[in-house]
Amino acid sequence: MDAESLRLAERLLPSTYIKQASDADISRRTKIHQLLEKRKCPDEGWDDQTIEGLLIDLAKMDSNNFPANCGVGEREARIYSGLVAQRHYRLGHGIGRSGDISEVQPKAAGSSLLNKLTNAMVLDLIRRIGIRGTQACLVMPMATGMTVMMTLLSLRDSRPQAKYVLWPRIDQKSCLKSISTAGFEVVVVENVLEGDEIRTDVPALKEKVTSLGAENVAAVLTTTSCFAPRGVDRLEESTDKNFLVPVGGAVVAGFDAHFIEHIGKMYPGRASVSPVLDLFITLLSMGVQGYTALMTQRSQHMEHLRLRMGEVATNLNLKLLQTKNNPISIGLALPEGAGTELGSQLFLRGVSGVRVVTPDQVKVVAGVTLKGWGAHHPNYPHAYLTAAAALGMTRTDVDTFMARLEKCLKKMSNKLKETRADVNEDGLENQ
Amino acid sequence: MDAESLRLAERLLPSTYIKQASDADISRRTKIHQLLEKRKCPDEGWDDQTIEGLLIDLAKMDSNNFPANCGVGEREARIYSGLVAQRHYRLGHGIGRSGDISEVQPKAAGSSLLNKLTNAMVLDLIRRIGIRGTQACLVMPMATGMTVMMTLLSLRDSRPQAKYVLWPRIDQKSCLKSISTAGFEVVVVENVLEGDEIRTDVPALKEKVTSLGAENVAAVLTTTSCFAPRGVDRLEESTDKNFLVPVGGAVVAGFDAHFIEHIGKMYPGRASVSPVLDLFITLLSMGVQGYTALMTQRSQHMEHLRLRMGEVATNLNLKLLQTKNNPISIGLALPEGAGTELGSQLFLRGVSGVRVVTPDQVKVVAGVTLKGWGAHHPNYPHAYLTAAAALGMTRTDVDTFMARLEKCLKKMSNKLKETRADVNEDGLENQ
Amino acid sequence: MDAESLRLAERLLPSTYIKQASDADISRRTKIHQLLEKRKCPDEGWDDQTIEGLLIDLAKMDSNNFPANCGVGEREARIYSGLVAQRHYRLGHGIGRSGDISEVQPKAAGSSLLNKLTNAMVLDLIRRIGIRGTQACLVMPMATGMTVMMTLLSLRDSRPQAKYVLWPRIDQKSCLKSISTAGFEVVVVENVLEGDEIRTDVPALKEKVTSLGAENVAAVLTTTSCFAPRGVDRLEESTDKNFLVPVGGAVVAGFDAHFIEHIGKMYPGRASVSPVLDLFITLLSMGVQGYTALMTQRSQHMEHLRLRMGEVATNLNLKLLQTKNNPISIGLALPEGAGTELGSQLFLRGVSGVRVVTPDQVKVVAGVTLKGWGAHHPNYPHAYLTAAAALGMTRTDVDTFMARLEKCLKKMSNKLKETRADVNEDGLENQ
Amino acid sequence: MDAESLRLAERLLPSTYIKQASDADISRRTKIHQLLEKRKCPDEGWDDQTIEGLLIDLAKMDSNNFPANCGVGEREARIYSGLVAQRHYRLGHGIGRSGDISEVQPKAAGSSLLNKLTNAMVLDLIRRIGIRGTQACLVMPMATGMTVMMTLLSLRDSRPQAKYVLWPRIDQKSCLKSISTAGFEVVVVENVLEGDEIRTDVPALKEKVTSLGAENVAAVLTTTSCFAPRGVDRLEESTDKNFLVPVGGAVVAGFDAHFIEHIGKMYPGRASVSPVLDLFITLLSMGVQGYTALMTQRSQHMEHLRLRMGEVATNLNLKLLQTKNNPISIGLALPEGAGTELGSQLFLRGVSGVRVVTPDQVKVVAGVTLKGWGAHHPNYPHAYLTAAAALGMTRTDVDTFMARLEKCLKKMSNKLKETRADVNEDGLENQ
Repeated sequence: MDAESLRLAERLLPSTYIKQASDADISRRTKIHQLLEKRKCPDEGWDDQTIEGLLIDLAKMDSNNFPANCGVGEREARIYSGLVAQRHYRLGHGIGRSGDISEVQPKAAGSSLLNKLTNAMVLDLIRRIGIRGTQACLVMPMATGMTVMMTLLSLRDSRPQAKYVLWPRIDQKSCLKSISTAGFEVVVVENVLEGDEIRTDVPALKEKVTSLGAENVAAVLTTTSCFAPRGVDRLEESTDKNFLVPVGGAVVAGFDAHFIEHIGKMYPGRASVSPVLDLFITLLSMGVQGYTALMTQRSQHMEHLRLRMGEVATNLNLKLLQTKNNPISIGLALPEGAGTELGSQLFLRGVSGVRVVTPDQVKVVAGVTLKGWGAHHPNYPHAYLTAAAALGMTRTDVDTFMARLEKCLKKMSNKLKETRADVNEDGLENQ
Repeated sequence: MDAESLRLAERLLPSTYIKQASDADISRRTKIHQLLEKRKCPDEGWDDQTIEGLLIDLAKMDSNNFPANCGVGEREARIYSGLVAQRHYRLGHGIGRSGDISEVQPKAAGSSLLNKLTNAMVLDLIRRIGIRGTQACLVMPMATGMTVMMTLLSLRDSRPQAKYVLWPRIDQKSCLKSISTAGFEVVVVENVLEGDEIRTDVPALKEKVTSLGAENVAAVLTTTSCFAPRGVDRLEESTDKNFLVPVGGAVVAGFDAHFIEHIGKMYPGRASVSPVLDLFITLLSMGVQGYTALMTQRSQHMEHLRLRMGEVATNLNLKLLQTKNNPISIGLALPEGAGTELGSQLFLRGVSGVRVVTPDQVKVVAGVTLKGWGAHHPNYPHAYLTAAAALGMTRTDVDTFMARLEKCLKKMSNKLKETRADVNEDGLENQ
Repeated sequence: MDAESLRLAERLLPSTYIKQASDADISRRTKIHQLLEKRKCPDEGWDDQTIEGLLIDLAKMDSNNFPANCGVGEREARIYSGLVAQRHYRLGHGIGRSGDISEVQPKAAGSSLLNKLTNAMVLDLIRRIGIRGTQACLVMPMATGMTVMMTLLSLRDSRPQAKYVLWPRIDQKSCLKSISTAGFEVVVVENVLEGDEIRTDVPALKEKVTSLGAENVAAVLTTTSCFAPRGVDRLEESTDKNFLVPVGGAVVAGFDAHFIEHIGKMYPGRASVSPVLDLFITLLSMGVQGYTALMTQRSQHMEHLRLRMGEVATNLNLKLLQTKNNPISIGLALPEGAGTELGSQLFLRGVSGVRVVTPDQVKVVAGVTLKGWGAHHPNYPHAYLTAAAALGMTRTDVDTFMARLEKCLKKMSNKLKETRADVNEDGLENQ
Repeated sequence: MDAESLRLAERLLPSTYIKQASDADISRRTKIHQLLEKRKCPDEGWDDQTIEGLLIDLAKMDSNNFPANCGVGEREARIYSGLVAQRHYRLGHGIGRSGDISEVQPKAAGSSLLNKLTNAMVLDLIRRIGIRGTQACLVMPMATGMTVMMTLLSLRDSRPQAKYVLWPRIDQKSCLKSISTAGFEVVVVENVLEGDEIRTDVPALKEKVTSLGAENVAAVLTTTSCFAPRGVDRLEESTDKNFLVPVGGAVVAGFDAHFIEHIGKMYPGRASVSPVLDLFITLLSMGVQGYTALMTQRSQHMEHLRLRMGEVATNLNLKLLQTKNNPISIGLALPEGAGTELGSQLFLRGVSGVRVVTPDQVKVVAGVTLKGWGAHHPNYPHAYLTAAAALGMTRTDVDTFMARLEKCLKKMSNKLKETRADVNEDGLENQ
């Protein structure tokens, strides 16, 4: 309520009550002022009421919600269905202009503000919990793969001669697709084995850059780590994995604000505000503290998962893969021939996300032939399954999974003494 | 309620009431069965309750909503904020797989079904109200410009030698950006004047194809019409303009189902379900009848707008531009020097979407210099403003606009007798 | 957004956009200021966004929503379920105090304000569309019958000797129940027939007052009209019938503000805000114009219904009851024995609300024996059905009803030539 | 989705996915079947999606939501505002009929089912967590005081001669109001002091029954405990205190199912479904386990509160009142003259619900003069404040309260060495 409303309300209620309500509201207002002034992810999460109040206020700033607006353009953000209007808080104009996805949209001051604040909060969060030196970031309302492709496309101007993208192998189809769709040629750099662990072959990568000529290499597209010479100053996250929002957006962040800005200018047209809105709500709702707490829990669940996997491995005389540099997922070597059926068994028992890898697959993706598809290596010595402790997982998830896994493994192990099942052509978790 | 629930409810309520409720529900079920069986946009719109019931049922089919699911993958569609979960009806997995945006996502049977049904309904609607021979369509969860770019990129495989895109001029930045981002060279085909009207120069276009060599031309990117030889079998709509949903998606439709499928396979990664969900709700809610009614109303409002504009033109001794082939927007020639200030005046009076064009602008977009920017022609003989009657407009919009316009024009006309204001560099409605 | 927020937003957006958004918001704020200042139902309805914004602001004024509140009482309006919190806009404290339902609740300034504004708007609307001289009104969050009972109970203090309530007969159980529950003795005043019409027997009523002694009569409980001497200055409406909100509240209005206030003081405890909230939203949403339009439509539908009923009567050689003083419902005399089965037929065909009356029923309600139950008269000469044109009805409702009725009547009429079915003991529409 | 829909969906998706989704849905269906069959509060709480799905299904069973319904009655549950419709899940018909609040409403099978299930769940919960022998219960959609009044009114038939209600004193206005509004005479039975504790004077109560004549006593209205001879077999809870729903309903439970039924029959008219709906959602959402957990937490918080209060008392040389029989609230004796200002100080610091009692108040409520109002005793030897650990309280509430209290008490204690402030007339927490 504005000051005038409160003043008028004093004719209806004792002024002490009005005063108390007004005082209580100051803390909410202060939060909003700080967000607008500092443009940082709040330390402590906000309650839903404050978030919804702010969203309604932002929506009122868009021209389609002006009470006296008359729209005679082709694009006036009219929304037919009340259900649709409501689920978007009546934000209809999207974000950006034809020229630039991060530009202010004149018909939608509120949506534009929301977009700027979200980008600023993500940048702040990345700096505080991850890479301190990040200079800029941009929430892109499309898949990670699309975002990688746009990023590669935007390298063309600055590196017109370059036609190769070096790719330390990671067996995700969308990486290859994004390079190929962007019109570059993929140069696969196979990984090396260190014990059970698969590591990027940095010397081979350097050698490739030299042999192809640095000027001919547009980028090194690496998924797991960011390493020194000639590495692209760029990080992408898929928002749904790391921020617990629905699939739909990606974050581009980097050390070169100008380059990030350039990527934004490549997006031809206005974009959906939806992934930005999800992030805005989520970041305000969790705050840095909430996010940090989730990360801590994730680590604990990972330790718990590792421990329980180790126990099961010992009990059933299986090998737990030693991958000390992977803090997110863990692998268990499987007896020969067990993979496919185990995958199906787990699927039918309501386990989602387990990945069963058999090392003898060959796959052609975007014209590139990859031996040992799914294993990130042409000759990985084991069939295995992996399980991950992702953000938002609960301890119950781990315990339920382990119980189901152990049951299936025991069953398998009995069965395997007699038969050998064929293995499927592809892993289950190849999204 | 399922049959067993109804049976159990009979112990609590008279069976005639259960029977009546069950009978009433049959009509809802029948609608849903027909949607699944025929995959057509319903003739009559559905009520919100039926739509919401179906959405909840679809969401229950996604693995993140399975009561006993345990997720150990990296992507389990966990949603942090209740507000976010609710606004997406708890659909979190997005659509598509790494390989293909239109492929079924194994973790999300419900979202996949929603996607397929939406694409089918859009195809049906396009066939029934527009181009009967359309063979396939695909709702892309990104801007029209991005979609055009993806479409152009997908032409590269089939036309490897082609490097030109012919572009009958239309002054929208995103067209040029999409060609340029896709890595093609723009060949501008200037329009011709027929009276007040600007028309595509078809002979010049043909000549260009010949002179450049057909094999070197990837596509003709035309915005307004689809013409015969060598035209690309492709139509794009921006969903928010034509389907009254928030900005965020585009529809690719065409006569070659295989080509459309190919475009889907170019999208590297999963995409947001959000624009698809908006369309799904909206199409079910309006039905073909609702859509047809909106189109009829739009035509009537256009006639009304044309009539009222004509009256104002006559009264103020201005020229109404004669553009009989444009059924959507209408132009009014302005006295010299009136444009910019008029635009500001209308903006401040809550008129959005009016486009004020002064014919002497020069603009460089994506490296292409365009004389007469905003007018679609290098030497258009008038400054003018345009107003459009878009889908969803109301008669009140027209009347309010005309009242405000007339007031501003009168004021201008008095003022112009003395002064001449400078004109701005750019139109107001250049999004 | 408050002024400080807008000022801060200017660092992120061009100030002209902020200015325009702020200007647009003034019209909303003005509406709210006027509501608080004038406390009248707005002429023009508000959009949902403005209503929801105000509700969120009101909810913030309740102590359970104060961010820094700590509650150590027994009643702190904590709400367990997010679904419940949301559907009440987080208003949890109800209205009133132990002493008085219309008193300000110290823990809930927002709810109290909402309550006062709703009562004021209802009073204003009653004055403007109905009885100009109404002095006070009170929305009671309970059934009409309960409200009547409370009203009767509150007469006891002022008329301690009175033990009778005179009741011009109207065959609604809850009237009798409310008198009896309040501890008064019902004195039935049978109606008189004027043609087909049943009218209150005013002379008999006067005579009863005289014979019982005015001091022994607590009230005359009359449902349809308010007549001169000794009539109680009181009107009740059931809010759901007249204001298109869910069942749950009633309005007490009268010419004596003190008496209305007294009724409020009789309610022992805090009450649900829910019916008040429904009315608040609905009145703001429809405005006086919306309400007036609904009344006009209702009249038109009534005329249409009367006309169509007349046609059917003529075609089937039935008698349309002539009740020119009843502007809401209309009756059609039925052939002997047709009633019950016709009622079932219509019920099964999805017609709700039709009332089939057979004049030979006898019913004992709250100890009172009533001959001709359902007909409001001991010897009504016809069996009949009634249909009503209530507020919110559509023309389609009339047409659908008439089509189904005609079909059933034809079927009946054929059947009746042979058989005579038994009639049921009670009308279908006896709620 | 029904079986036919799933079958049809198999043409669009692999049948294994459909199968998995269908299997997952079985657990939800089973929960619903069990609810309908056993009519017990579930042990484990349900997720919101299952609850919302069921509510939509129930709403579809009400005639106002039948797609082909045409309503020609006066009460067809038409709802004007979409906001209102949505917040009630489109349940518009309320519960009950004129005759009986617990009767099935023919136009609203869904609402009726919801009502029956809620009453059954509350009964089950009361039996399992409280009084095992409870035979029946009824959720009344009105304040506790109103419900008490209705209960008293319903005693009149069975005890026509009785005119007294014995009232072991508890200083709540609504108790007295309910007796008085029901037309009975209050007989106050003053409490006795046992140490700091106030206890019902059972011998005095028995003596009163004898001296007045048992046949003249309608009821003993006792708030805290249910004791043996002549005690009324009745319990009321205010739903918002014990079930964490918004203010608005009350539960009547008792050992005599027939008597409870009789109370339901006293309610003249249909009632709001709203408080029933809140309870339905909340009970399903928390389950018995959730409720038990809340009770355990409450006990722990109470212990924590008692401990912290004790520490503060010791530190500041104040007396903690010893009330071992009160498991919910705790009192701290205050220095003379400290009460009122302390109350204001706490109020301004965002502490709600603390009750400050000064033992020298005299109050007349409903014609009864009570000495020592607020203290439940005419000569309580201390001024004091109380704080309660109610259901839903958090440990943070306790800690925040204690910090604020300690601060205020220290300030007070310094100030009191010099001045003595006047005490206010009334406690703060007298709702």
